[in-house]
Amino acid sequence: MRFAVRVEVRSLEGIADPEGQTIERALPALGFRGVEAVHMGKLFRFVLEADSESAARATADQMCSRLLANPVIEQADVWVEPLGADASDEPAVGRSA
Amino acid sequence: MRFAVRVEVRSLEGIADPEGQTIERALPALGFRGVEAVHMGKLFRFVLEADSESAARATADQMCSRLLANPVIEQADVWVEPLGADASDEPAVGRSA
Repeated sequence: MRFAVRVEVRSLEGIADPEGQTIERALPALGFRGVEAVHMGKLFRFVLEADSESAARATADQMCSRLLANPVIEQADVWVEPLGADASDEPAVGRSA
Repeated sequence: MRFAVRVEVRSLEGIADPEGQTIERALPALGFRGVEAVHMGKLFRFVLEADSESAARATADQMCSRLLANPVIEQADVWVEPLGADASDEPAVGRSA
């Protein structure tokens, strides 16, 4: 079976997020007021071949810890959804890796 | 009112995604098979003060076109959700900017 996987990687709480801070500081000069708590992360999307949804999730979790995220400073959230019948763009099943 | 905004920025169809391609090429050497269509994008999260959800969305769309995304090569998807009662991590309302 094929699964659509979405992985969001972002800084752990308490770890600096310089891109987010820079954007937040730039916004008032561009006329945007009332924007706060700006955070920037990475979003990976890919298609995975696996026997089951749990196998797909296990593979995606391994990919996070070995390649996509640095667990010392980043957290990764993984969403897995079977491809096919309802290939929605926004998988509903979320879990933190 | 305060709104939680999530913006996903990714390459337009047909525009090269070198990070995604590099990751896809690295995976077999790490023992991951059957992974394809790897795409990497940016995900912004922030909190916005606005009078209504439509005003919040309009501001977020402007932020996309002026700062967060390059509309020549990137597409931005914006999700807006009121903060408060149900501060779910996964806003349900999606629209392409």
